[in-house]
Amino acid sequence: MDLYFSPLACSMATRIAIYEAGGNARFIEVDTKAKRLTDGTDFLAINPLGYVPVIRTDNGELLTENSAILQHVAERFPDAALAPADGIERSRLQAWLSFIGTELHKGLFIPLLDRKAPEAAKQYAISKYGPRLDYLNTYLKGREFLLDRFSVADAYLTTVLNWSRATTIDFEQWPAVKDYFDRMRARPAIARAFAEEGALFVQEQARHKAA
Amino acid sequence: MDLYFSPLACSMATRIAIYEAGGNARFIEVDTKAKRLTDGTDFLAINPLGYVPVIRTDNGELLTENSAILQHVAERFPDAALAPADGIERSRLQAWLSFIGTELHKGLFIPLLDRKAPEAAKQYAISKYGPRLDYLNTYLKGREFLLDRFSVADAYLTTVLNWSRATTIDFEQWPAVKDYFDRMRARPAIARAFAEEGALFVQEQARHKAA
Repeated sequence: MDLYFSPLACSMATRIAIYEAGGNARFIEVDTKAKRLTDGTDFLAINPLGYVPVIRTDNGELLTENSAILQHVAERFPDAALAPADGIERSRLQAWLSFIGTELHKGLFIPLLDRKAPEAAKQYAISKYGPRLDYLNTYLKGREFLLDRFSVADAYLTTVLNWSRATTIDFEQWPAVKDYFDRMRARPAIARAFAEEGALFVQEQARHKAA
Repeated sequence: MDLYFSPLACSMATRIAIYEAGGNARFIEVDTKAKRLTDGTDFLAINPLGYVPVIRTDNGELLTENSAILQHVAERFPDAALAPADGIERSRLQAWLSFIGTELHKGLFIPLLDRKAPEAAKQYAISKYGPRLDYLNTYLKGREFLLDRFSVADAYLTTVLNWSRATTIDFEQWPAVKDYFDRMRARPAIARAFAEEGALFVQEQARHKAA
């Protein structure tokens, strides 16, 4: 499997899932500003939408969208049990992937992280989607994971929560979210992904500054 | 199955899927402004997030989030083949559900439809997510459906595209999208859902005006 990723972007959830499964992949870095791979290859020829993650499956199929990719990775490494196989538990996994993708990732964080977003769009995002963190905080009280055990939804949520560091969002206000985030990033697979992508992120920032 | 819905909201995708399957459900209308059912019941006790759709499955489980609910409905009515069962085709369905949910529904349409959204947030939404319609238009050229046959992703996309009527978005600019939308809403199950929810929407607007 190939994973097209950008350091610390939402594609990190897939890296985490692969590491949690004890699996491996070819990790191909994308400069999502230039829409090119680091060797200059046009990324828009791989994904016309220009965003990560994209995977190339073992069968050579290109697949986009975190929610679809994370479920594919869970099925690719069934022994790791990163997703319930079916039934209502599978539906709950899908509901969490959707909540994280729409309410948190797209609704709350994208405007806050986007330098081109006007201040009014950032304030709108906080007023409309900030309360989702209240909901998450209440849900996480007394729970270790989103489901009964670690799943790809935890990989995605941890990746998204990490972006708070680049925003005005402070988890002190949501202690169960803070505890969850601290607990997740202490997991060896997640700590490894953070360390590796953190280093790549610093290099990427340096390249952008030099350009 | 019970479906908690609000007229013409994204919950209509589930109604469409049920009608396409020749199935039935108890449809329970929610006033998402008042966060109450039409009989006054507190909707926040059913979904603390206050939004639709929510379903109560035949086993009595509450489930939220369009992407999860639509896949559940497809599995509830397997003979209708509203979703590929597994493999890369199932992944592609999930990718479309995610794209519609994040890029179109949440990214593009929510700020445009929300009266409380500042003008700058609307402009930001159009500049960032308007180009997704270019992508969709290119993809739909020469295709009848998002996948090889009608699926729950078409139910969701049709529901979302319908919101353009309340915005400045004009599909004349994206003729393959326009043709797709016209084709979908001519399907009997979709025409029925539009007619029923359109009538309920008019009643809801009248109630809000009178309140």
